[in-house]
Amino acid sequence: MDFLTEFEAKINVANQSLQKYFAKKENHQMSIYDAMEYSLFSGGKRIRPVLCAACAELFGNAEDVMPFACAIEMIHTYSLIHDDLPCMDDDDLRRGKPTNHIVYGEAMAVLAGDGLLNLAFETVLNHSKASPALTLEALRIIGEAAGAEGMIGGQVIDLESEGKAIDAVTLMAMHVHKTGALIMAAAKVGALIGGGTKEDILNMEKFARYLGVAFQIKDDILDVESSVEVLGKPIGSDQSNEKTTIVTLYGLEQSRKMLEDYTNNAIETLEEYGDRAAFLKELALFLLRRDR
Amino acid sequence: MDFLTEFEAKINVANQSLQKYFAKKENHQMSIYDAMEYSLFSGGKRIRPVLCAACAELFGNAEDVMPFACAIEMIHTYSLIHDDLPCMDDDDLRRGKPTNHIVYGEAMAVLAGDGLLNLAFETVLNHSKASPALTLEALRIIGEAAGAEGMIGGQVIDLESEGKAIDAVTLMAMHVHKTGALIMAAAKVGALIGGGTKEDILNMEKFARYLGVAFQIKDDILDVESSVEVLGKPIGSDQSNEKTTIVTLYGLEQSRKMLEDYTNNAIETLEEYGDRAAFLKELALFLLRRDR
Repeated sequence: MDFLTEFEAKINVANQSLQKYFAKKENHQMSIYDAMEYSLFSGGKRIRPVLCAACAELFGNAEDVMPFACAIEMIHTYSLIHDDLPCMDDDDLRRGKPTNHIVYGEAMAVLAGDGLLNLAFETVLNHSKASPALTLEALRIIGEAAGAEGMIGGQVIDLESEGKAIDAVTLMAMHVHKTGALIMAAAKVGALIGGGTKEDILNMEKFARYLGVAFQIKDDILDVESSVEVLGKPIGSDQSNEKTTIVTLYGLEQSRKMLEDYTNNAIETLEEYGDRAAFLKELALFLLRRDR
Repeated sequence: MDFLTEFEAKINVANQSLQKYFAKKENHQMSIYDAMEYSLFSGGKRIRPVLCAACAELFGNAEDVMPFACAIEMIHTYSLIHDDLPCMDDDDLRRGKPTNHIVYGEAMAVLAGDGLLNLAFETVLNHSKASPALTLEALRIIGEAAGAEGMIGGQVIDLESEGKAIDAVTLMAMHVHKTGALIMAAAKVGALIGGGTKEDILNMEKFARYLGVAFQIKDDILDVESSVEVLGKPIGSDQSNEKTTIVTLYGLEQSRKMLEDYTNNAIETLEEYGDRAAFLKELALFLLRRDR
């Protein structure tokens, strides 16, 4: 199977699993489910659940990973809903569609985000077939990555950097938390649930740390280079928001070089796994070359 | 020990445990911790953790309950922060103090709420000493009670009822979800972790269902009868928001009667436990008579 076919197949599995876990709720007539569903199924790239599943596969057991992979995607989705709110980034467009609060109103968007964070934990608690001890260990990784020491902490740095010139260290700290933490959690939880050793889990964390930074550099480059049609959200928004990005700090050429370096570092981390890690290597290259 | 002394002691244990779990975080210099701390320690009545601990005590083991009791209080606190936001109830005052977004701004208040919901799960995952299976079962109860089928669902009903006349059935559904779900979860989780049987857990759920409704009726009565000094938030806010409440539906006299009936029903549920349940009975009476 070539990479793109396998990638598509993995995205389909993630989407079907998300549908399954989402559909399990009773009161589907409630409008909050519409709001939650709208953002959860509005064309996300599914990088996190695919990464999580691929890491589990690498270590032999991809059977039990989906509740965790989907939980991470739900957390990612909730963070976007809250991030787009008028009091936060005030974005009207996301993935080519009106943002959640534009469609459902601010109050419902707050609740839909809350609901998705809660549903992430519910999904694991209701559907995990891994052992109780392993389930708790994976939840611990996810919880820490999503919280004030992880993703939310990154959003705080972002918030407090608004309209300020920040240095490279702060910018990197922001990205490692805001974007990197969940990507690392996806890889670690995949390796854990898939049956990897402690060393494997550390390797996957390292791989994902490089991948996460590369991902963010690419995002910053796309904000300058892409078009609103391809990207599905306004381009140049970083500049108009006076945001410090990798590109404003290092310039386009140097940013492209960094993107390649981080991607290569990520791929090198996988060396010892040889061809078994082929999909993960291709995934890193795919993310390097993506146009949205 | 008389009831009030025991109540105070239990509140102290809850506060100390909350401090302990909250202080465990690394980056205490981050401003989000200030925002989270502000609401978590701004004079909450601690009904939920006290109820949870008392239910655990009733069934013999109060050792392991605190991470769960505190998680429920964190969830309660986050829901108040989000509920007070300008796009929700737009309240400036809570427990006699400016609400979270008045002090820290809307964006930080959204994140502080998110952080507290996340911290609730982290607290259990990091501090539970109950068995993995029991920990997961308790988390399942908490997750369901807090989510779109529970508390958040109640907030949605509340949101969609704004400025509308709603009937008694809808009003009760709102309260059972918005306030009742977490109170029931506190009692159930207490009984579960404390070593109660399935029947005990069902009994505690029933007790807490009555207690939760009584609690809400009392809140609606206080909104009419109390003063801003005693209550710590504006009185008459239900009326000025054109909210349907127990009092607007049934009038004051009938509401008082209902409050007594529900309280008596709650207490009757405890009959079979005799004097061992003395504290819980007194707690129900205390909540009936409270002035804030």
